[in-house]
Amino acid sequence: MSLSSTLLENAVDQLATLPGVGRRTAMRLALDLLRRDTQKVVRFAEAVRALRENVRYCERCCNISDNPVCEICANPARDASLICVVEDIRDVIAIENTRQFKGLYHVLGGVISPMDGIGPDDLHTRELMDRVHQGGVREVLLALGGTLEGDTTGFYLNRKLAEQGVMVTTIARGISVGAELDQADEITLGRSIADRKPYEQSVKR
Amino acid sequence: MSLSSTLLENAVDQLATLPGVGRRTAMRLALDLLRRDTQKVVRFAEAVRALRENVRYCERCCNISDNPVCEICANPARDASLICVVEDIRDVIAIENTRQFKGLYHVLGGVISPMDGIGPDDLHTRELMDRVHQGGVREVLLALGGTLEGDTTGFYLNRKLAEQGVMVTTIARGISVGAELDQADEITLGRSIADRKPYEQSVKR
Repeated sequence: MSLSSTLLENAVDQLATLPGVGRRTAMRLALDLLRRDTQKVVRFAEAVRALRENVRYCERCCNISDNPVCEICANPARDASLICVVEDIRDVIAIENTRQFKGLYHVLGGVISPMDGIGPDDLHTRELMDRVHQGGVREVLLALGGTLEGDTTGFYLNRKLAEQGVMVTTIARGISVGAELDQADEITLGRSIADRKPYEQSVKR
Repeated sequence: MSLSSTLLENAVDQLATLPGVGRRTAMRLALDLLRRDTQKVVRFAEAVRALRENVRYCERCCNISDNPVCEICANPARDASLICVVEDIRDVIAIENTRQFKGLYHVLGGVISPMDGIGPDDLHTRELMDRVHQGGVREVLLALGGTLEGDTTGFYLNRKLAEQGVMVTTIARGISVGAELDQADEITLGRSIADRKPYEQSVKR
């Protein structure tokens, strides 16, 4: 498919880099953008650019936050002795929606995936260890997806955290194996948090 | 779903304006963009902004083009007495791929859709009339989608063009009713161009 315009070709190429967007869909998106007012498209482009250029992370839990410390970490009513480790902000939102969890979070920013060249040092694991090392943490709850990568990450973190003498738990596998955490319904996800059990028992299954 | 960051909220809001993208998908796209190098995201945003800000249209056929006159209109081997009217550039690409059509195009930039507030004056109909009025056009082939809006647009254009005494044809409806033009396979679409018939016969069906 060769297009008559380099501008259009560039835009389609870029839109096709989005996950789940092929070239046909990218063309549909490009034509939709072309039908809008210029100002609206500039606002669109600016929002995307600003997100990446100006993004800030909570200095405690590594969640995306406009303030140095996010609202959850700054809330004195939350139980600071319990840290829930998740892959990204979507999981924080999903767990918050269950209203079952009163502790704090730690956002890894991904999971260990040797296939994609993502190791522990590419994630916020160092920051998690520092938080535990500083003391006051009673329990670390691993709330990772039931995928191979999620399991690998959990295995790695349990080993590192056990060295520090902290209790490591994992959410009950009420969530079907292979599914992503943020796809689960709130009742299942809430139940899996209530039913959490020690990591060692969980991996025996 | 309230997010911890206005930047993220803005980006998700903007991404969710894309056709077929809900808030959950928009969040997935935003997180994907966040994982990329800043330079890559800047390039993405720039390509989208440049598309809308710098886009130019062929001064003859209204197709998207980097030059004042597009490659097809500038090609002396094409039959300038035959103009194929289409909705957008995707249809030009689809018809070019059939290698059945040797005339020129006229890109309307949409179809008449009272529901969306799009009338003939919002499309490049004036430019089409001017081309026909300037003479040298023997036949106008209406290659519009088999939708209600496509039919309405064809009906309107046939009436206007008949006044000018030009022959108006329409592609054979080998394409199933209700389907979009650029979704058809090349054989069906090529056949529908070869089998075109006078507009008046076609609407009687």
